[in-house]
Amino acid sequence: MKSYDYTTRIRYSETDQMRIAYYGRYFEWFEAARGEYIRALGLSYAEFEKKGYFLPVLEAQCTYHRPARYDEQLIVRTWVDQLKNSSLRFRYHLFRQGEKERLAEGYTIHAFVNRDMKPVRIPQEFRDAIEVVKE
Amino acid sequence: MKSYDYTTRIRYSETDQMRIAYYGRYFEWFEAARGEYIRALGLSYAEFEKKGYFLPVLEAQCTYHRPARYDEQLIVRTWVDQLKNSSLRFRYHLFRQGEKERLAEGYTIHAFVNRDMKPVRIPQEFRDAIEVVKE
Amino acid sequence: MKSYDYTTRIRYSETDQMRIAYYGRYFEWFEAARGEYIRALGLSYAEFEKKGYFLPVLEAQCTYHRPARYDEQLIVRTWVDQLKNSSLRFRYHLFRQGEKERLAEGYTIHAFVNRDMKPVRIPQEFRDAIEVVKE
Amino acid sequence: MKSYDYTTRIRYSETDQMRIAYYGRYFEWFEAARGEYIRALGLSYAEFEKKGYFLPVLEAQCTYHRPARYDEQLIVRTWVDQLKNSSLRFRYHLFRQGEKERLAEGYTIHAFVNRDMKPVRIPQEFRDAIEVVKE
Repeated sequence: MKSYDYTTRIRYSETDQMRIAYYGRYFEWFEAARGEYIRALGLSYAEFEKKGYFLPVLEAQCTYHRPARYDEQLIVRTWVDQLKNSSLRFRYHLFRQGEKERLAEGYTIHAFVNRDMKPVRIPQEFRDAIEVVKE
Repeated sequence: MKSYDYTTRIRYSETDQMRIAYYGRYFEWFEAARGEYIRALGLSYAEFEKKGYFLPVLEAQCTYHRPARYDEQLIVRTWVDQLKNSSLRFRYHLFRQGEKERLAEGYTIHAFVNRDMKPVRIPQEFRDAIEVVKE
Repeated sequence: MKSYDYTTRIRYSETDQMRIAYYGRYFEWFEAARGEYIRALGLSYAEFEKKGYFLPVLEAQCTYHRPARYDEQLIVRTWVDQLKNSSLRFRYHLFRQGEKERLAEGYTIHAFVNRDMKPVRIPQEFRDAIEVVKE
Repeated sequence: MKSYDYTTRIRYSETDQMRIAYYGRYFEWFEAARGEYIRALGLSYAEFEKKGYFLPVLEAQCTYHRPARYDEQLIVRTWVDQLKNSSLRFRYHLFRQGEKERLAEGYTIHAFVNRDMKPVRIPQEFRDAIEVVKE
């Protein structure tokens, strides 16, 4: 799997008084999208946590090209473009459904850590499942 | 202490495209207000959790009289009006700073539970500190 | 249509350090659910706003029976049980997918208002589309 | 004024089940901090909007060094390090109160636009008030 397209409809709670989606909410969509990406690999982030692995965010970034608005159906195209010993980077392209022009794009870098927040080697089953895609 | 006045300024993130504060955000203000109420008693909810006590919400309600808007300075007047064996009720009145008319009012009912989410008797130090006030 | 079942998966952002869904987030799910209920009637809340109608919340309530957790697939069963001249009440029952026992239940009461936040008669097309269901 | 220190206490709603502050919430603190920065200059973002100026976000970034936790008192040190014709960049350093080591740091880049979301020259009163500080 090269990438996964997560779909979400913008909630009223996600708008602000500029009548567009609030910039901080994009990071919640990114989070939901990478959860579904992991599920589409046949894995489960919830299961990772039960086994004692966590994926805290080390860095997050988003570039906003055009506003997104209430009730719009969004696609968050999600893939991994870096996989290191104990960290990885997710990339995200955001589209309005049926459109080709990006509304926004961003990335998040994550550490793989144990319950004590110490970095650990990314588990082999995750390594095997992921296809690293450079844009 | 009969009640505690928590002050907060409405964030942009807390508005929606109706150009008013989003109705679900009031429950975050209520939560922050009861945390400060507990601190004003000389206690700490964070410490309760370290000792293995938790205060999950059993019921929450809010009546919205007039809209609250971005950048307004709000007062959340907070007190306890019911204290049972293992549950209690917080009440909240919301004002714009310097005004007497309520913007909103509500309540939350909480259980006192242990780590296994089993109800426990409300600790004596909390019981001793609280002054129950019927409106 | 008697009721509409809105499905949502709990996001990480919607959890708190009690390792359950945060109580205030339920009101966002209620909002998304009533939006989809309106869409299922063949109408659109976004269109209502373009025509100058708004549905601010007058009152909101939720009773939490059992915790909801990260990654769970939720059903929000949504219907209208009161329809007055210029206000209406939505009811919500929350289930884990495939289960019959309610996790939570609640309601929201809304005014129909114009751009100046003045109450107006609920539009006939909305009145005609809604089936009022007493529980 | 070189920079402004905005203080906020971490709310329960801002935590997640990793028992740390959710990464997306930092952007709400950045937003509150730049609002207070502008107020400390003797100006008001709310007033800007009334005059028809808006400051949508073009880009946002945050690096997370160490976790922030419930009930901690945070300082968001905020300043402007770039001021162009119709855009500017805010920088943020996040500290636990009384500590010198950064928990996180980030930036947001904003356009100055009119009601039609068209870029406009940053108003002179804002230009005059701001002291641009390179780190």
